[in-house]
Amino acid sequence: MTRVAILGATGYTALELIKILLRHPDAELTALTSRQEGNPPVATIHPSLSSRLDLALENLTPAQVTARADCVFSCLPHGVSATWVPALLEGGARVVDFSADYRLDDPRTYAEWYALDHPDPDRMSEVVYGLPELFRERIVDAPLVANPGCYPTAAILALAPLLQAEMIDPKDVVIDSKSGVSGAGRSPKLMTHYPECNESISAYNVGRHRHTPEIELILSHAAGKDVQVIFTPHLVPMDRGILTTTYTRPVKETTEDALFECLDNFYANHPFVRVVEHLPATKDSVGTNFCDVTVRLVRGRVVTISCIDNLIKGAAGAAVQNFNLMYGYPETTALD
Amino acid sequence: MTRVAILGATGYTALELIKILLRHPDAELTALTSRQEGNPPVATIHPSLSSRLDLALENLTPAQVTARADCVFSCLPHGVSATWVPALLEGGARVVDFSADYRLDDPRTYAEWYALDHPDPDRMSEVVYGLPELFRERIVDAPLVANPGCYPTAAILALAPLLQAEMIDPKDVVIDSKSGVSGAGRSPKLMTHYPECNESISAYNVGRHRHTPEIELILSHAAGKDVQVIFTPHLVPMDRGILTTTYTRPVKETTEDALFECLDNFYANHPFVRVVEHLPATKDSVGTNFCDVTVRLVRGRVVTISCIDNLIKGAAGAAVQNFNLMYGYPETTALD
Amino acid sequence: MTRVAILGATGYTALELIKILLRHPDAELTALTSRQEGNPPVATIHPSLSSRLDLALENLTPAQVTARADCVFSCLPHGVSATWVPALLEGGARVVDFSADYRLDDPRTYAEWYALDHPDPDRMSEVVYGLPELFRERIVDAPLVANPGCYPTAAILALAPLLQAEMIDPKDVVIDSKSGVSGAGRSPKLMTHYPECNESISAYNVGRHRHTPEIELILSHAAGKDVQVIFTPHLVPMDRGILTTTYTRPVKETTEDALFECLDNFYANHPFVRVVEHLPATKDSVGTNFCDVTVRLVRGRVVTISCIDNLIKGAAGAAVQNFNLMYGYPETTALD
Amino acid sequence: MTRVAILGATGYTALELIKILLRHPDAELTALTSRQEGNPPVATIHPSLSSRLDLALENLTPAQVTARADCVFSCLPHGVSATWVPALLEGGARVVDFSADYRLDDPRTYAEWYALDHPDPDRMSEVVYGLPELFRERIVDAPLVANPGCYPTAAILALAPLLQAEMIDPKDVVIDSKSGVSGAGRSPKLMTHYPECNESISAYNVGRHRHTPEIELILSHAAGKDVQVIFTPHLVPMDRGILTTTYTRPVKETTEDALFECLDNFYANHPFVRVVEHLPATKDSVGTNFCDVTVRLVRGRVVTISCIDNLIKGAAGAAVQNFNLMYGYPETTALD
Repeated sequence: MTRVAILGATGYTALELIKILLRHPDAELTALTSRQEGNPPVATIHPSLSSRLDLALENLTPAQVTARADCVFSCLPHGVSATWVPALLEGGARVVDFSADYRLDDPRTYAEWYALDHPDPDRMSEVVYGLPELFRERIVDAPLVANPGCYPTAAILALAPLLQAEMIDPKDVVIDSKSGVSGAGRSPKLMTHYPECNESISAYNVGRHRHTPEIELILSHAAGKDVQVIFTPHLVPMDRGILTTTYTRPVKETTEDALFECLDNFYANHPFVRVVEHLPATKDSVGTNFCDVTVRLVRGRVVTISCIDNLIKGAAGAAVQNFNLMYGYPETTALD
Repeated sequence: MTRVAILGATGYTALELIKILLRHPDAELTALTSRQEGNPPVATIHPSLSSRLDLALENLTPAQVTARADCVFSCLPHGVSATWVPALLEGGARVVDFSADYRLDDPRTYAEWYALDHPDPDRMSEVVYGLPELFRERIVDAPLVANPGCYPTAAILALAPLLQAEMIDPKDVVIDSKSGVSGAGRSPKLMTHYPECNESISAYNVGRHRHTPEIELILSHAAGKDVQVIFTPHLVPMDRGILTTTYTRPVKETTEDALFECLDNFYANHPFVRVVEHLPATKDSVGTNFCDVTVRLVRGRVVTISCIDNLIKGAAGAAVQNFNLMYGYPETTALD
Repeated sequence: MTRVAILGATGYTALELIKILLRHPDAELTALTSRQEGNPPVATIHPSLSSRLDLALENLTPAQVTARADCVFSCLPHGVSATWVPALLEGGARVVDFSADYRLDDPRTYAEWYALDHPDPDRMSEVVYGLPELFRERIVDAPLVANPGCYPTAAILALAPLLQAEMIDPKDVVIDSKSGVSGAGRSPKLMTHYPECNESISAYNVGRHRHTPEIELILSHAAGKDVQVIFTPHLVPMDRGILTTTYTRPVKETTEDALFECLDNFYANHPFVRVVEHLPATKDSVGTNFCDVTVRLVRGRVVTISCIDNLIKGAAGAAVQNFNLMYGYPETTALD
Repeated sequence: MTRVAILGATGYTALELIKILLRHPDAELTALTSRQEGNPPVATIHPSLSSRLDLALENLTPAQVTARADCVFSCLPHGVSATWVPALLEGGARVVDFSADYRLDDPRTYAEWYALDHPDPDRMSEVVYGLPELFRERIVDAPLVANPGCYPTAAILALAPLLQAEMIDPKDVVIDSKSGVSGAGRSPKLMTHYPECNESISAYNVGRHRHTPEIELILSHAAGKDVQVIFTPHLVPMDRGILTTTYTRPVKETTEDALFECLDNFYANHPFVRVVEHLPATKDSVGTNFCDVTVRLVRGRVVTISCIDNLIKGAAGAAVQNFNLMYGYPETTALD
């Protein structure tokens, strides 16, 4: 049994994480933190947990957390998470960090995109990126895992195999992504006010979304050379799900069969990526830890389409997948 | 041509009002107020008005407003609107007030339900309730019209004819209403945050919604005796529309034909109520100023179903209908 | 391990049932039937099952089914299910029937509401109604369980305790229900065509919905006397969830505390009913087997509000709850 | 006054067209056709038209139609429309054809993409494409106008100015489009069954959508050279609206200001295209005849984003805009 704490437990990602962990036979939730006053029971914030989890939201210190937990999932915001992580590691915990703080390896890139000086810059370059389909071996022993962003997960899982196999041009990558609204978090804002975003679709943060350098870093690692992407996120009127359509150019003549074969081989031993022949809908993967990927050759261009549940494979499910690898449980535990 | 000002022009009701008035051949928009800083063009707040209306949002005084406008539509919040109205009337304007401030006739009832001392209590009892289907004659000459609430409109239009004809028991009235989210206004709140209210329905303010005394006051007027209602509003995941189902008891044996005949007669000269035989959906009336009403006799109980667009017949459309009556324009101008 | 077959496996209820059973440690899916040609893999019909279940949809006879399965879940339509059940029982299987065929106890009532002569009328009166909160003891040994309808589940769980305790008048029961669209099944129809029902709410089958006699039968059993209801279903633009608001009259003066106490006592030993003080939203119970219930005393009337996921507690989850009771597994297995 | 008939009046496009024409001071609806039996009043099929339009749906011949109407809007399916058009023109009517039958100029391309022999091939090359922003002068005198497809409208209005000005490479055009569900028509299908497409996004017809050759034909005309596109449509869970994101490459170094200037100049005299600086949402243009367009320069690539209401600017509104030009009415009549 592994004792588990969740920092910043009031958001959607934490709620999803709690629901998954309640099904995990080897994880015991022992602490939930938030800055709510009065240590309210978690079910007052998440009514769907009524009668399912009898824990309070507490305002704890890192030391109090590591006294209760072996593994800490941090759902704190970027910039905050990295002020907690050093103390958690020193306190003996292993950490899965949902924030962006340890996904990039260079404090200058971080400062440029997040407009913040990184609180823990020296550690950045040694943290493993928690995408098991690319870094499973390193996750097993990692004290700290940077849980991937939701958009990067959908984009990387579609493109990394083709880049690694040198089938597509790393300098001509267009990524057009569409996400449900839960990706924007639980704080009410005009953009996510129901009558504003319902029955509407729009692009946002065009050319300047923070997931851009994260996608490029990991794809460059897969390609073994610099990858540059044009990434455009869109907000879709649905709760969950990301569908990512990419447009790239083959480096030499190829076939759809060859593209599928590349994907099939890459994911042969990865239980949560389904290479499918049909065009996937986000609904097929919502509620699961699966990423569905397909590919088409259209007039000489390679078009991939990939889908995930942004809160599961794009966040809480991936985190538990990492947790399973870190603690030696079967990779699919609580996720099937 | 009538010069028109709108107070509190940043919300959904004001936007809808602007769109209707842009089609009105005899209304000229001359002023829009808000407390936004810097007098921004209205299209920066309502992008759908780009290229359609070249007015700024200004922070004006009542005197500045009446200098520019013959008719003032107040979309100010309750409690605030009644602090403006006296000065507007003294300044020579006629006023259509969207707030609840002049819908009730008794300052004590107002204080009880709105938890406020009414700023202009003496005027309350003399203001006409702007539901043309009940008070058309009085609206024509009114200096000040209290524009009805959205829930009251749907409920009253279904029940008033049957109560007036003494066909149903005024002491046994259950009103179960379902509303789209725009009825909650444009200020972001957790309740109307997309991932909270999407794909979900809930009741709210059970037994204590502020439209209860308004419904009872107007239905009592129609019945000629005290009417008491149980009113339950529900929030439905859609932008617009109210569907109201009522359950009452016939005072003596009746037939569905007799119930329809009562409704048909009552609305014979009212262009915006459609007595329909089919079960109406809110979609039939959304985008229009119509109220669709039907009735069924179910196991000895009278069940009415009525639908409106909460922002049009439930707010901005009714206001323009009132405006047309007040200024002698055909009642349907800009509303068909 | 219990071997399980599902008849009529192409619909939403069957899909939900498969997903739950895939998590059940003691159930093994051995057969899925449909009239699809060519025995397609189930994932071609339900792409969300890709890589999760390697079974074909087969056109089997009852004897073929009972040769493979100990327990049969029938998702066949009413009228058809009762033509299979006799052979399944004779073949030694126990059956959970999702259709309405065995929910009523009188062939004449069935004929009146379903416009069909019942194919197996003699068995009707002896079949147990599979609502564990009312009939747990009888379910344990039942060869055949009639799985409850979705609307009846939400209505009965709110009202049965109050009727059994003689706290509310059995002759004055108004039930206003709101359901997501998946309740209408998977066959495309104009009513459930996206642009027709999206952004709209409507009542349907007013006064003649087939769940009416089912609700009355079970509530009459709970009350120990005849219960008559006015039941109005509404179609809400969301995938899942039922919210039911009921309006009844106390038989003598009572308090909200007394009403809550009645509910609390009734459900003290039932893990899937949560008596909650807040006003529940369907979203709190969607994805779970919970029914959330609350009660209010409004101006002397009793108002209950209850929520379920129509596909889980209203169908597949209840079926697995019944299965667990029938086979001696913990009642919550695969449902928490 | 121009007498107007609509062929195939049961669909969404026809409904929208009727609503617009009801506001048109110089158009009189005189005939609506369909193959419905029994000449039902149009409001039985479109309940939102109750009390607004007292016309029946009739099964008429071309001669009967031209006896009653000066202008005929054909909402018939492709392949059928071109069997009516010759007789309508011979009968003296002018025609706006919503089908794809006269949008392409080459019967072989038509046969390739629509899998049909064109019924009226000789006329194809002389028909004007009814996009006023490109072909206003020719529309004025045209006997027959091919009303543009919805996807082509959004894509062409964003790209044609940049191609005409030789600012972007005609051989490297990626078009990623997202459409609401009404674009799929009113016939129930599994793909548009509410619980299938709600809360989900998917790509469809990747690499083989029939609007591809239409987009290429018109863009090639604008560019003065061959344009080839990769076009991917997506289905978004909303009633209306298309958002199109395009990715192209500047032919020489450019700036965002220069790109905006190109768009501004092109649309200076076109009332229904709004070149906006903000990122538009479909909601801004839904319910209007506007197309909102913006452009960004992202890492050396040109990204355009354009939005329309697929049923208005993408269909019925454009048709009335064409009608206004054809009959000498102000271009914006009934559309503002």
